[in-house]
Amino acid sequence: MNYKIDNLQYCNWSRETFEFNRSAGLDAVHVTIVYHEDYNEFLTEIKKWQKLFKDNSDIIFQGWDYRDIEKANKEKKTAIFFGFQNCSPIEDDIKLVEKIHKLGCRFMQLTYNNQSLLATGCYEKIDSGITNFGREVIKEMNRVGVVIDMSHSAEKSTIDAIELSQKPIAITHANPNFWHAAKRNKSSDLLKILSDSGGILGLSLYPHHLKDNTNCTLESFCEMVAKTAEIINIKQIGIGSDLCLQQPDSIVEWMRNGTWSKSTNFGEGTKKKPGFPKQPHWFQDARGFSNIEKGLKKVGFSDEETNGILGNNWYNFYKLI
Amino acid sequence: MNYKIDNLQYCNWSRETFEFNRSAGLDAVHVTIVYHEDYNEFLTEIKKWQKLFKDNSDIIFQGWDYRDIEKANKEKKTAIFFGFQNCSPIEDDIKLVEKIHKLGCRFMQLTYNNQSLLATGCYEKIDSGITNFGREVIKEMNRVGVVIDMSHSAEKSTIDAIELSQKPIAITHANPNFWHAAKRNKSSDLLKILSDSGGILGLSLYPHHLKDNTNCTLESFCEMVAKTAEIINIKQIGIGSDLCLQQPDSIVEWMRNGTWSKSTNFGEGTKKKPGFPKQPHWFQDARGFSNIEKGLKKVGFSDEETNGILGNNWYNFYKLI
Repeated sequence: MNYKIDNLQYCNWSRETFEFNRSAGLDAVHVTIVYHEDYNEFLTEIKKWQKLFKDNSDIIFQGWDYRDIEKANKEKKTAIFFGFQNCSPIEDDIKLVEKIHKLGCRFMQLTYNNQSLLATGCYEKIDSGITNFGREVIKEMNRVGVVIDMSHSAEKSTIDAIELSQKPIAITHANPNFWHAAKRNKSSDLLKILSDSGGILGLSLYPHHLKDNTNCTLESFCEMVAKTAEIINIKQIGIGSDLCLQQPDSIVEWMRNGTWSKSTNFGEGTKKKPGFPKQPHWFQDARGFSNIEKGLKKVGFSDEETNGILGNNWYNFYKLI
Repeated sequence: MNYKIDNLQYCNWSRETFEFNRSAGLDAVHVTIVYHEDYNEFLTEIKKWQKLFKDNSDIIFQGWDYRDIEKANKEKKTAIFFGFQNCSPIEDDIKLVEKIHKLGCRFMQLTYNNQSLLATGCYEKIDSGITNFGREVIKEMNRVGVVIDMSHSAEKSTIDAIELSQKPIAITHANPNFWHAAKRNKSSDLLKILSDSGGILGLSLYPHHLKDNTNCTLESFCEMVAKTAEIINIKQIGIGSDLCLQQPDSIVEWMRNGTWSKSTNFGEGTKKKPGFPKQPHWFQDARGFSNIEKGLKKVGFSDEETNGILGNNWYNFYKLI
């Protein structure tokens, strides 16, 4: 059985966006449901999702573990797994880790760009690694079954997390920086450590993470995947597209600035281009999975390898949570 | 005019504890009103204080600036200034800095032992200094008039804060580590930098910060003050006793652990001595100020220098807020 999984999307959800995912044949999507929200605000987001599940029950349902990926495949639906891009919802309370897990959270980033109470983000000047509270939280995430996601974290913090975690960690959405030297992309040294530890990398289709941004070619992307497979075990590579379909630009401003600054930070954008960048033509939405499939085969990946990258590798990772 | 000021107390407040301070002739006390509380919990503490002010209006009132120290002296009352030992009440929201100031907060520690969103605490393994959010918050604290207090912070973070702040900072309650090498006490290098920047040190009477703990002698304490005055300008030394009168031991456990760990951290205590330590006999409560006065004169301080340490130096510092 082959599964198709996009392990990171943050769309402005509607019937249409869920239908794009179904048309792409996605069995599972890990969706970001909060960034900087606290615990109570997270509960509000859960309520919104309960309505989305009810209104679209013919094509989506909430995923709790890997068996829901199998179920989705059988029922031709998409299982939606919840994740956080920052640790704000657990506030400063270790007991909230179990609570967010009970409500379905399966992935939590320890940081989003800046320093958090747990670790250092990739936009800080100095990376002090995992904090005292961070060590406690990693133990607890391992215990209850929330995956440590270091996509937006700084390098030492990520290496610390790999060492401290009893279970493999994930970088759900980032690319190697040998291909495109964005702050958010990862060094080859780090990717090697991730691979050796059994961790997984979800490759991103967000233009700021792509060589030549919106103009990135499918060939260039697939050649990058081939080179990445020389660093990381090919069974530990998947897709985490970082699709932010139909989001207004106010959302990316909030993602970058939260409530922590009185001045505006443009993150990966610039003052002239502050908004969401345009997707490359071959990946306008998840239906671009079929283009990636062709592209991967063209650069020499076997059917099995290609199916691994497009979903089976994530499916196997979900079995470890 | 001479003023007497204790610039850090965290007592279990009652008529009796306020009377101790009046008997000691204290014109002002900076009280810790929150540690790990968030903004809403801080509002709850404010309500408790409104009742305390109402019930004890003949001997205390809320202080807002240095003129309230003068007023307290005239009216034979004690002005109570609010402060935080952690930055939790501003959560991740820069706009809350102005709000806490409006409600009377005049001192805020950037950290309490562990890493915060702003800086690194003295109990972390690695100190990455002031964070991106921390830089924004320091600017805002300077603008609205909340003093940066680095008593529980790590060294690099403290030096960063001194450099970044446009106004002098405070270490409201700590001692030099040349005298007693506790984690919370400060290096001579740091104290020199603090002095050169116009900052102030409040000397602590908390037993874990004292040489020989509860058995510390008045002579040893006063000799330490004399040596400290060789490092720090004598006009920048005051008292921040860290008195925690009548607090149950559950409070010190909460101060040390908050909600961040499932195991118990004993901080400056030990598993065998987890509770609050006993005060030295010569400083059971603020009435011990008279013993310190005698002791300081005995080691050679002039009347003016002694009065400076016992309150005038803090009074002058309040004029800079």
